[in-house]
Amino acid sequence: MTVRAFGAHAAIKPLEPIDIVRRAPGPHDVQIEIAFCGVCHSDLHTVRGEWSGTLYPCVPGHEIVGRVSAVGVEVTRFKEGDLVGIGCIVDSCGTCASCTDHLEQYCERGMTGTYNSPTPGAPGHTLGGYSQRIVVKDAYVVKIRHPREQLAAVAPLLCAGITTYSPLRHWKAGPGKKIGVVGIGGLGHMGIKLAHAMGAHTVAFTTSESKREDAKSLGADEVVVSRSASEMGAHANSFDMILNTVAASHDLDAYTRLLERDGALVLVGVPEHAHPSPAVFNLVGKRRSIAGSMIGGIAETQEMLDFCAEKGLVADIELIRIQQVEEAYARMLKSDVKYRFVIDNASLEDRS
Amino acid sequence: MTVRAFGAHAAIKPLEPIDIVRRAPGPHDVQIEIAFCGVCHSDLHTVRGEWSGTLYPCVPGHEIVGRVSAVGVEVTRFKEGDLVGIGCIVDSCGTCASCTDHLEQYCERGMTGTYNSPTPGAPGHTLGGYSQRIVVKDAYVVKIRHPREQLAAVAPLLCAGITTYSPLRHWKAGPGKKIGVVGIGGLGHMGIKLAHAMGAHTVAFTTSESKREDAKSLGADEVVVSRSASEMGAHANSFDMILNTVAASHDLDAYTRLLERDGALVLVGVPEHAHPSPAVFNLVGKRRSIAGSMIGGIAETQEMLDFCAEKGLVADIELIRIQQVEEAYARMLKSDVKYRFVIDNASLEDRS
Repeated sequence: MTVRAFGAHAAIKPLEPIDIVRRAPGPHDVQIEIAFCGVCHSDLHTVRGEWSGTLYPCVPGHEIVGRVSAVGVEVTRFKEGDLVGIGCIVDSCGTCASCTDHLEQYCERGMTGTYNSPTPGAPGHTLGGYSQRIVVKDAYVVKIRHPREQLAAVAPLLCAGITTYSPLRHWKAGPGKKIGVVGIGGLGHMGIKLAHAMGAHTVAFTTSESKREDAKSLGADEVVVSRSASEMGAHANSFDMILNTVAASHDLDAYTRLLERDGALVLVGVPEHAHPSPAVFNLVGKRRSIAGSMIGGIAETQEMLDFCAEKGLVADIELIRIQQVEEAYARMLKSDVKYRFVIDNASLEDRS
Repeated sequence: MTVRAFGAHAAIKPLEPIDIVRRAPGPHDVQIEIAFCGVCHSDLHTVRGEWSGTLYPCVPGHEIVGRVSAVGVEVTRFKEGDLVGIGCIVDSCGTCASCTDHLEQYCERGMTGTYNSPTPGAPGHTLGGYSQRIVVKDAYVVKIRHPREQLAAVAPLLCAGITTYSPLRHWKAGPGKKIGVVGIGGLGHMGIKLAHAMGAHTVAFTTSESKREDAKSLGADEVVVSRSASEMGAHANSFDMILNTVAASHDLDAYTRLLERDGALVLVGVPEHAHPSPAVFNLVGKRRSIAGSMIGGIAETQEMLDFCAEKGLVADIELIRIQQVEEAYARMLKSDVKYRFVIDNASLEDRS
């Protein structure tokens, strides 16, 4: 069946209305009418061909929420009308050590991304959430237990939420722990909310004095302006973990120095240009580590959504029409958004 | 009391015979007649002022073994005649979180090194094992349970042994684990022996085809010549931990790529010139980490010595007279030693 979408035909072309084909639901499939889709930095990088390997036409979007409109005969966990989400993963091998450990994001044969991954169906690669409808295997669909009126603000949890939740859990954020979050954007603002909700003493790092009050209102117990040597120095050797959401190249030593013994600086962004090489002495001297983490598995995504529903957590969003997406990209590049754009997919109806 | 030692009066001076003063044993002190002292790369860097902060006169040496010749009135764990060792640490605050966790090497007020650390006694800084005798607080002395005839080969365990043992234990080397050891020198050769003795599948990495058989005889289950892309590629995504003993600047990505999900590349050497900046994607894509580790605590040093005694492990050494130490440094810089020089401290008697 043909549905309306927004996509690009080439790296140099803007996003524009296109028609795409979704498969009829197979026995294990769930068909979802997409209500809202968050706008992630990855969308922009991929659609503009800034990362190698973009397949065109490219329809981005992997922070998808909507309502089930049909299910395959073998599907038991979902029924028509359910509110559900799709994140960054729509398939994986299911048999490797990572998949059997419920860590499909690290599938050893390569997970299938929600967009821009090779797939048997037309056009040969997956197409994402800037569209009216999507059909996904039930194992990759998660339930949304938030109230219906929060649905738009739930969308960013499917990428920004799980990308910060998973490392916070893995590195055991919780009561008695001191956790830092670097960067107050789409990911960072969720990192602050989640670390605080987990009970950790949460410290936000920002380059800008102007964001101090914003960070506190998100849940930060303390805010450090990273340009201030004295503010940074006051936190030396004190963090159990620092979650670094900044993808631009920057000095990591400023943060490793703030870790206590056995502390970890966890990177969730991949910079286009390498960070300056981190000082090994800062690692050796206190058995610290620099690690990376990527989104989260499906079971953990469900756990994160349930945790957020229980705690009343959603993202802070700015709702846009699909026709505003290029403008949103331009503002996102200037960090001019608090803190995530979310597309109202009903606007795909409008062809004027 | 005055004892004979070898030390340098300035960075540009060679090591030469000097007389130094050791304190009379206090109530908690152990006085040790030094039988042998291993030669560590740190000795050379420190005595030649290649690291900032060398205090002169400088008497290096922190792989010390010998016989107890006197004990203070409060000392109960040692008696005259005991074979004992002193490693890199002769004091620490004893009250910080690291000290109370028996991790004195990470003392938050700064551990007192066996040489070149400030101390109240003359000459104002500690003097190490290139000397006839040393007086150390009993809490920093470890027992040697190896046979007397192995004593010289035990000396390198006090630094090279514990520096590799501690991270292998911390990152849980053992049966069912695949552990890599990069570099087959003073540290690396002990890393191979220890990882193998712990029951891990042990893979040695060397730049040189000629070291392949040597590495196998040390206990490596497999040897990889790191210059061979095909040999390296065959081990992609397979290691739980890689212990990297190479202090020279090199490409860390070649090793992070070999780690499986959640694997750690653990650095125990601090390069003079920074490593090329490691690729963040290699960390994020499989939740890998790059960490550092420094020697080990006193309790763990005792555990390591007991483990080695039980398993019959010692270092492979080349015994020298103190008068050959400059020559030994020259050869060490060319990696021309299998695998650790150890000074026979009886040669300090010789003033000819």
